[in-house]
Amino acid sequence: MTFPQPMPFFPAAANFAAGNDTPRQFLERCLSHVEKFEPAVGAFVCHDIAAARAAADRSAARWRDGRPFSPIDGMPLGIKDIIETADMPTEQGSPLFAGCRTGRDAASVAAFSCGMIPAALGTQVVGSILRPASFCGCVGFKPSVGRINRGGSYDYFSQSCTGVLAASLEDAWLVAVNITARAGGDPGYPGLQGPAEPPPPRRPRALAVLRTSGWEEAAPKARAAFEAAVARLADAGIALADRHADPVIEEVEEAIADAAPLTRSINAWEGRWPLNTYRDRDATKLSRSALERLAMAEAMSLTEYGAAITVRQHNRETHARLTARYDAAITLAAPGAAPVGLGSTGNPVFNVPASMLGIPAVSLPLLSIDGLPLGLQIAGFVGEDAALFAVAAAIRDLQGAAA
Amino acid sequence: MTFPQPMPFFPAAANFAAGNDTPRQFLERCLSHVEKFEPAVGAFVCHDIAAARAAADRSAARWRDGRPFSPIDGMPLGIKDIIETADMPTEQGSPLFAGCRTGRDAASVAAFSCGMIPAALGTQVVGSILRPASFCGCVGFKPSVGRINRGGSYDYFSQSCTGVLAASLEDAWLVAVNITARAGGDPGYPGLQGPAEPPPPRRPRALAVLRTSGWEEAAPKARAAFEAAVARLADAGIALADRHADPVIEEVEEAIADAAPLTRSINAWEGRWPLNTYRDRDATKLSRSALERLAMAEAMSLTEYGAAITVRQHNRETHARLTARYDAAITLAAPGAAPVGLGSTGNPVFNVPASMLGIPAVSLPLLSIDGLPLGLQIAGFVGEDAALFAVAAAIRDLQGAAA
Repeated sequence: MTFPQPMPFFPAAANFAAGNDTPRQFLERCLSHVEKFEPAVGAFVCHDIAAARAAADRSAARWRDGRPFSPIDGMPLGIKDIIETADMPTEQGSPLFAGCRTGRDAASVAAFSCGMIPAALGTQVVGSILRPASFCGCVGFKPSVGRINRGGSYDYFSQSCTGVLAASLEDAWLVAVNITARAGGDPGYPGLQGPAEPPPPRRPRALAVLRTSGWEEAAPKARAAFEAAVARLADAGIALADRHADPVIEEVEEAIADAAPLTRSINAWEGRWPLNTYRDRDATKLSRSALERLAMAEAMSLTEYGAAITVRQHNRETHARLTARYDAAITLAAPGAAPVGLGSTGNPVFNVPASMLGIPAVSLPLLSIDGLPLGLQIAGFVGEDAALFAVAAAIRDLQGAAA
Repeated sequence: MTFPQPMPFFPAAANFAAGNDTPRQFLERCLSHVEKFEPAVGAFVCHDIAAARAAADRSAARWRDGRPFSPIDGMPLGIKDIIETADMPTEQGSPLFAGCRTGRDAASVAAFSCGMIPAALGTQVVGSILRPASFCGCVGFKPSVGRINRGGSYDYFSQSCTGVLAASLEDAWLVAVNITARAGGDPGYPGLQGPAEPPPPRRPRALAVLRTSGWEEAAPKARAAFEAAVARLADAGIALADRHADPVIEEVEEAIADAAPLTRSINAWEGRWPLNTYRDRDATKLSRSALERLAMAEAMSLTEYGAAITVRQHNRETHARLTARYDAAITLAAPGAAPVGLGSTGNPVFNVPASMLGIPAVSLPLLSIDGLPLGLQIAGFVGEDAALFAVAAAIRDLQGAAA
């Protein structure tokens, strides 16, 4: 079965204003894909197509009147099942919460309407935005930590971010910046900083090439695809350096080498509550991995957690030293193409460093292995999400020109 | 009607171990107070006395066997109505959530059992721990921001803390430190730092005396009571300085002068979500003040919020300069005694600076006006909660000796 490319909303919206297309027609094109592929994919816990059509018609009327709510008015949007919505259950993927309705919209949803492609809201604590984006051939955006309001998402981890999967960098930016203009960032954070329009491409002066501790686990064809992309950037005259060329990059590689076990400890402690109260309620409804995480947490002390977040802070300061010399870092978004079947969601080894560091990162669908998509990951600096988008757009254009 | 002094748990627990008293007998003494005063006070949304008695009996058995869960095993505890409990509804003081049961315990409750004095868990964004403690003649403790896990509390404000109202400093410390040993702090924070036992009194070398922008609003008798306390500390040989004696204190007084409007702006933006989704659901169930806060928030931009938290951070850095010269700062905990009737919960002007600064503060029931209690507030430095308790215990002992 060959899946279609996701449809960007940003270019279509230009036609809504001109009267050559409507949000309802855009939705119907999405629905024809959903009808064809959902039986095989099983992506949606629930959807309400009649409500989506009515919402798209109301949006069409606003565009026709020249008064859309925002540049993404009418964009169909998927919402991860741990994020509250007023009109759909929030089940957190768990039988403990079957049919649970909270009756309110999460901060990132109030801004929007219904539930389908071309964009989706997700959350990433380890790698749950960038990895699926890599596997699905779409753009994934994990913002700087705290920059998109997580209110109403059942996810309290200190590394967790609400982020976006979208058909294009432009759509991803518009979704993210329109959420934060209305709902802000997490309390105490300034929210996503940047322009209301997608940042235009800006050619990077220099890029750090990270091969990370995931490199050894990556498929030979994934490594080859990455090296080809690096070679195309070098051919285009972009300055590139790796751990062998720059001792600061070597220090960063060392600081992120243990990102996975460090993140595991931090998440275990932070999940101690509420997992302990769920276990006391009905342990048979917790997965074996949740029970294992809880056991790990209950063997930890507050002092050990404090030591772990101190190490994390030190790693963040080490990484920030790249700012002086590089516009961004590039690496793979996954060690290979999507695994076959439902037994595994894939290895997050290339995603956990950005989560641990709290930095913004995007996955771009620029690589492939035997026809299956593979993401090129571009990671920026805390708070500099807009600059990351500008550099990522330039890299996309350079790769596209060379391909 | 004369209310009883709250009963400290810490000295009673020594008798549990010796077999001269039991948690059940302690509970019955509390219940005799509840029976007598609750009809006039109306403090409890709900309680389950049979379950409390059964829990006290189980605790008594553990003490008898020499195996209590913690030094506060069996302590009856009140839980503020915005904090989730597995076995009671969580109504947030609002008809929108009448009968709402979430089926899980909040992070700060899992550690405990049932619901009554001598200690209570509360939350403070502006002044909702220290002010009622002052009015009620008990000890109030607002910890450093982030140091007691707020998970399960319906309160996402960046200044909000879960804190403790208790019969004594020792009880307040034991409740707080036992919660954090089990549930930690907010994700990303190291949690409350300090010993498992109450910190012993430590005589301060020097104290900063803050009269704050609330001073002009304080009742003359409140000011006189405060000045008498200051004089007793001076007589005891403690070095004291105020804004006239030290330009650093003058800068701090200026940094906290606008704490109330700054906090109002920050809280308005941070409450934009979820208030907007509640309004969209049923605006008639929001209070007028909630609708006013929402209107204020919707007139703000993300940029204005960013500017407000930048000012707050600057104020925090200014306050931290006191660390070099003073062990703590003292001020009033309220501008007067409790207001009569249910029309007002009192003026938080003396409490909002500690909330805005994110610093730990306690209110001690050492002052009075015409026989009504008034709190002396002692404020410390971020993360130094245990040092604050040691200094506060010494100040309590000095005041008691002089009184």
